[in-house]
Amino acid sequence: MIHMMSVQLDVIPGDVRQNWKNIQEEIAKAEQSRADILILPEMCLSGYLIGDLWDQNSFLRECELYGEKIIRASKNLSIIFGNVAVDWKKTNDDGRPRKYNAAFVASGGHLVTRPDIPFPYAVKVLLPNYRQFDDKRYFTGLSELSREENLSPEKLMSPFTIPAGDEILKAGILLCEDSWDENYPLRPMEIISACRPEMLINISASPFTLGKEQKRHRIFSAASSRFHLPILYVNQRGLQNNGKDCYTFDGMTAAYGPDGILKRESPPYTEPRSSFLFTRESGCLCPCRTGTDAGSSSSMTLTALRYGVNKFLSAIGAERVVIGISGGIDSAVGAALYRSVLPPGQVLLVNTPTRFNSETTKNLAGELASRLQCPYIISPIGSFIDQTEQELQSLMDIYPGMSWKGTGVIKENIQARDRSSRILAGLSASFGGIFTCNANKTELSAGYATLYGDMSGALAATADLWKHQIYQLGRELNQWFPSPVIPDGIFALKPSAELSDSQNVDHNEGDPFIYDYHDYLFRSFIEPWERKTPEDILSWYMENTLEEHIGTPLSVHSLFPSPRSFIDDLEHWWNLFSGFAVAKRIQCPPLIAVSRRPYGFDLRESQLRPYYTEAYLDMKRKILNSDSREFR
Amino acid sequence: MIHMMSVQLDVIPGDVRQNWKNIQEEIAKAEQSRADILILPEMCLSGYLIGDLWDQNSFLRECELYGEKIIRASKNLSIIFGNVAVDWKKTNDDGRPRKYNAAFVASGGHLVTRPDIPFPYAVKVLLPNYRQFDDKRYFTGLSELSREENLSPEKLMSPFTIPAGDEILKAGILLCEDSWDENYPLRPMEIISACRPEMLINISASPFTLGKEQKRHRIFSAASSRFHLPILYVNQRGLQNNGKDCYTFDGMTAAYGPDGILKRESPPYTEPRSSFLFTRESGCLCPCRTGTDAGSSSSMTLTALRYGVNKFLSAIGAERVVIGISGGIDSAVGAALYRSVLPPGQVLLVNTPTRFNSETTKNLAGELASRLQCPYIISPIGSFIDQTEQELQSLMDIYPGMSWKGTGVIKENIQARDRSSRILAGLSASFGGIFTCNANKTELSAGYATLYGDMSGALAATADLWKHQIYQLGRELNQWFPSPVIPDGIFALKPSAELSDSQNVDHNEGDPFIYDYHDYLFRSFIEPWERKTPEDILSWYMENTLEEHIGTPLSVHSLFPSPRSFIDDLEHWWNLFSGFAVAKRIQCPPLIAVSRRPYGFDLRESQLRPYYTEAYLDMKRKILNSDSREFR
Repeated sequence: MIHMMSVQLDVIPGDVRQNWKNIQEEIAKAEQSRADILILPEMCLSGYLIGDLWDQNSFLRECELYGEKIIRASKNLSIIFGNVAVDWKKTNDDGRPRKYNAAFVASGGHLVTRPDIPFPYAVKVLLPNYRQFDDKRYFTGLSELSREENLSPEKLMSPFTIPAGDEILKAGILLCEDSWDENYPLRPMEIISACRPEMLINISASPFTLGKEQKRHRIFSAASSRFHLPILYVNQRGLQNNGKDCYTFDGMTAAYGPDGILKRESPPYTEPRSSFLFTRESGCLCPCRTGTDAGSSSSMTLTALRYGVNKFLSAIGAERVVIGISGGIDSAVGAALYRSVLPPGQVLLVNTPTRFNSETTKNLAGELASRLQCPYIISPIGSFIDQTEQELQSLMDIYPGMSWKGTGVIKENIQARDRSSRILAGLSASFGGIFTCNANKTELSAGYATLYGDMSGALAATADLWKHQIYQLGRELNQWFPSPVIPDGIFALKPSAELSDSQNVDHNEGDPFIYDYHDYLFRSFIEPWERKTPEDILSWYMENTLEEHIGTPLSVHSLFPSPRSFIDDLEHWWNLFSGFAVAKRIQCPPLIAVSRRPYGFDLRESQLRPYYTEAYLDMKRKILNSDSREFR
Repeated sequence: MIHMMSVQLDVIPGDVRQNWKNIQEEIAKAEQSRADILILPEMCLSGYLIGDLWDQNSFLRECELYGEKIIRASKNLSIIFGNVAVDWKKTNDDGRPRKYNAAFVASGGHLVTRPDIPFPYAVKVLLPNYRQFDDKRYFTGLSELSREENLSPEKLMSPFTIPAGDEILKAGILLCEDSWDENYPLRPMEIISACRPEMLINISASPFTLGKEQKRHRIFSAASSRFHLPILYVNQRGLQNNGKDCYTFDGMTAAYGPDGILKRESPPYTEPRSSFLFTRESGCLCPCRTGTDAGSSSSMTLTALRYGVNKFLSAIGAERVVIGISGGIDSAVGAALYRSVLPPGQVLLVNTPTRFNSETTKNLAGELASRLQCPYIISPIGSFIDQTEQELQSLMDIYPGMSWKGTGVIKENIQARDRSSRILAGLSASFGGIFTCNANKTELSAGYATLYGDMSGALAATADLWKHQIYQLGRELNQWFPSPVIPDGIFALKPSAELSDSQNVDHNEGDPFIYDYHDYLFRSFIEPWERKTPEDILSWYMENTLEEHIGTPLSVHSLFPSPRSFIDDLEHWWNLFSGFAVAKRIQCPPLIAVSRRPYGFDLRESQLRPYYTEAYLDMKRKILNSDSREFR
C-alpha cells in the first residue's frame, strides 16, 4: 500500500518565498503522517495567473532556486510538484528564454529522471490559449519539443517510476489541460495510458467556473474507466487575477477509480490536504478521511464569492469597506456579502439620498443596515448637486453659444459621480479601507452605470452575475445568516437607480430592462462558446425558438407586440452593448469571475462600431416588409 | 512590365461593410490606372485588433461573404488580399471553428489556386503571441495544417502564379510576422525563396511602435539581398485597439530591390496607395511616384499621436474636448496636441485652482489658453473642497472611534477627484464631448495619480510617454504651430501637482521624482524584452554600470549619497510600481501606444505583492554590511 498525500496549496501568486514556506510545512506534515508521496499542484511556487512576470529572468531564476529547495527536501519521501522549467540555451518563439510549464518528481533529495529523456521533468502537452488563458504566450509545448529533439510525444510522455516507501509507483503525470483534450489533435491521457502506468496524476491550476466540476467529472470518469486506471486530480486553492478578473481556485482534489467512479472530492476552497491509499493489487485509490466531506450547504456561487472577497481583501491588505446602499437589491447583496466575511464594525454603510430617493428605499436601506448591525451614515447630497449644477451652468454661460445643457442623463451622472467619487472615496480613505462597486453583469453589458460613479470602487464582487443571479444570491445570503438580513421589501421593489422623477419606485418605475428577458439576451451575446449576435437572435425569433435558445422564462411575443418593437429593442441594446458600454468596461473595477465568460481579460473587447451583418439586415427587411401594418 | 498598385487601406476595425465600400473604390481606381495587380493588406475586411469578435460565427460568415465580393470584383485585374479563412469542418484547439489568418489571390472573378494544395489561400505561418498580439488565440498556423494534411510546409508555402495583364507573375505571399522570423524554427522567407518566385509580397497589419521601421528595413533588406528577390511590404493604416491600448497603423508601404536596397517607403499615415512597376527582365520593382515622398517634418511620436488622437475622436464620434490645464507641462502638451487636430472652438480649457495653485501656474495656464485661442474657463474649487472636507468630517464623527483623518494624501485626492469627476466630467457632458486624461508613463508607473481624479478621462493620449518625452513632444508641438503655443515658463517650471503647501512651485517644490533618473529606472522595469527587477538594478549599481545599462544621463552615485539611500529609493518605487500602481492602472483610461511596451493589454499585469528575489536580498545584505557607517 502506498500512502499518497495531496496538497491543495493556497498559492500566493508571485510570492515564491511564501509559497516555499507553506510547502516546507506541508512536507513536514507529510513526513509526520508517513506519506510516501506528496503531490503539489501545477505552478505551486509561482502561481499561475501572474501576467507578464514571466518576462523577468530574475523571477525565473527565483523559481528555479526554490524548485531546488523542494527537490532537496524530498529526503524522506517523494514529491511531485509543478514549476516552470527553463532551458536557458533555447528560446521561445518570442525570443525570450525557453520556458515549459512542467511537473517535477523528486525523491531522496534528487530528481527522478526517465530513461533516454534528456530533461528531468514532464512538459505540459496542451497549452490552453482561450478565455483567460495565455499559456502559449509564455510556454513552449511538448509537441514543439518533440520535433526539436526528434523524440516521439509517446516517449516524452512516458510515466515516472516513483519510489514510494518500500514500493515503486509507475505513474503518468499530466498537467491540467492535458486531461481536457477534447479538441486537440494530441490526446495525452490516451498516449500515457498506452505505456501501462498504474495510475494517472493530474496536477492543476484550474480556476473555478460555475459548473466546471461537473464537466471535470465527466471527462475524468470517462478517461479512468476507458483506460482502467485510477486518476488523482490535485488543484490549487487561492485567488489569482490578471488585473481585470479575479479567479478563485477551489482545490477540490478528486480521486477517480479505475471503474470511472468518483471516489472522493474535497469540499471546495476549504480542505488544505487529503490522503489516499493506493493498493497495487486491486489497482485501487482509496481516500483516507483526513478532512471533512461535509460540503458547504451554500451554493457554489455564494461559496466562491465569499472566498473571493475574503482573499481579495487580505491580498490588498484591506480590512474595512465602505458600501453605498440605496435600498436596492445590488447594494443590499453587496453589503450582506462583505458582511458575511467581515465583522460589522468593519463595514461602513452609507446612504446618500437626493429628492429622487423615495422614503421606501431610504427606509429599506436603514432596515438593512440595522439587520447587518453595521455603522450607518446618511448623507443627503442634494444641496451639493444643486450647487454643482449652478456652478457648471454659470461656467458654461461665460461663452456665447456654450450654454449649460442640464439634460436628464447629465444630471443623473452628476449624482452618481458625487456619491462615489466625493462621498464614498473620501469616507473610505478616512475609514482606512476600500469602497465597493455594486455593479451586476446586466448593467455592465449595457453600460447602464456611470463611470467614476457607481462604476467605481476597488472591487466589483458581483459584476459577473446577471440580475436574476443577484436576487438568487440575496436569497442565499439570507439563508446563510442566522436570520434574513435583506428585507423582503428589497426583493419586492422595482429595480431603479432613482436618479430622476421618472424612476420612482413607488410608481413602479425604474430600470429600462425586462430583466427576465434582457439577462438572457445579453448572456447570449457573451457566454456561449460561439457567441451570438442580432443575426442569430432574429433568426430564432423568426423561427419562434428564441426563448428556448437563450433560456428566457418569458414569451418574447407577449413582450413585444410587433416585429418592429422587437427589433427596436434588440438594436437599442446591441448598439449599447457593442458600443459605448465597451468604453465604460475598459475603466471598470476588477471583478470576481464565476461564469464561463466574465468581462475583462476573459472576454477581450475592442472599442468598435456596433455592427449588423448582411444576413441580419436581409432578415430585418423581410420581416418588416411582411409586417405591413408596421409601415403604414 | 507589370503594374502593381498597393493600397495602405485605412481599415475600420470590425466594420466589414465599410471596408468593402472603400475597397470597391480602390478597385475602381486601380482599374482606371490600368493596374495589373492590386494588393490589399492583411485582414483588410475585418481589421486586425478586434478582440474576441472572432468568437461570433455570424461575423466569420460576414467576412466570407465580403471576401467573395472582392473575388468577384477581380474581373479586370488580379487582387491579393488578406482575410480570415474558415474551415467549418474542422475546429481550432479551443473547439471553435477552424480559422486561418490567410492571403487570397483573385483574378478574372475567381480565386487563383495552387496545384495540389487543397485550399485556395495562403495560410499565415508564424502567429505572433507576445505583446499585444493574440494570433494563437484565434488562428491555426501553417505548421499544424501541414501535419494534418500531410503536406510539407514547403509545399503549402509555394508561390502563386498570378495573371498580370498579358504576363504572369510568380510571387511568394507572406503575412506580416512571416517575415519577422528571427526566433521561429520555421523560416518562411527562406522556404518560399527556394521555390524561385520572382518576388515576395508581404501583406501586413503591423501596429506602429517607435523605431519599428528601422528594424523592418534591417530584416527586409537582409532578406531581399540574401534571396536576390524584390520584396513589397504593404501595411494597413488606421487606428485599432484592444480596449486598453490604441495602436496606430502607419501604412508605410515599402519596396526593397533584389540588392537589399530600400527603393521607396510611403510617408507614414498619409498615403492611401502607391504604384510600382515590376520588370521581369531586370527583376526590378520600381516605384511610380503616385504620392508625395516628402516625409512630415514632425517626429514620428508627434505624427503618430496626432494621427491617433484624430482617429480616436472620429471613431467614437467626438468633436469636442474639455482639458483641465494646470499650468504644468503634461496638460499643456495635452492641450496643444488636441488643439493641433481640432479647431480652437472645439477645445475647452479649464483651470480649477485652489489656494495651493500658485499665481505662476495660473498665469501660465492663462497664457497657454490665450496662445491656443481656445475658450478658457477658470473655476476655483476651494470652497467645494472645504465643504466636502467638513461634511466628511461631520459624517465620520457620528460614530465613536471613527474620526475623520484629513491627512495630506486624503486631502490631495479629494481635490483631484473634484476636478475631474465633478467639474471636467460635468462640463464635457454639457459641451458635448469628452474630457482628457493627461497622464504620462512615469506617473502611471508609480501610481502617482488619483483614480477618478487626474487618472480619468476618455483617452490618455500621452500615457505611453515618459516625462522626458513629454517635454520633447512639447518642444515639437511648439515647432509644429506657426508660433510657440506652450510658454517657456511651463518648460522651466518644477513639475508639481500643487495639491498641498509642500508642492509649491515658487519654492521649487513638487513631484517626488528625479525624472532624469526615475524615467529610465521605471523604463527598465517595463520595456526591455527581458524585463529588469531590483536584482538587475542593484547588481549594476554594485558594478558601477547602472547608468549605461538603463540610459539615465545622471550619475547615480551623485544622486544617492549612500547605498542605503539608493536602496531605499529603489524599494520605495518598486513597491509602488509592482503594488498599488497596478490597481490604479487596471482602471485607467485607454492610451495611444508608441513604445515597445505600453501599459494595458501589451504589458499584462496581475495585482500581486511586490517581490524581491533571494539574489537581491543577498546583494542588499552584502552592500549594507560592507557600508558599515550605514549600520551605526
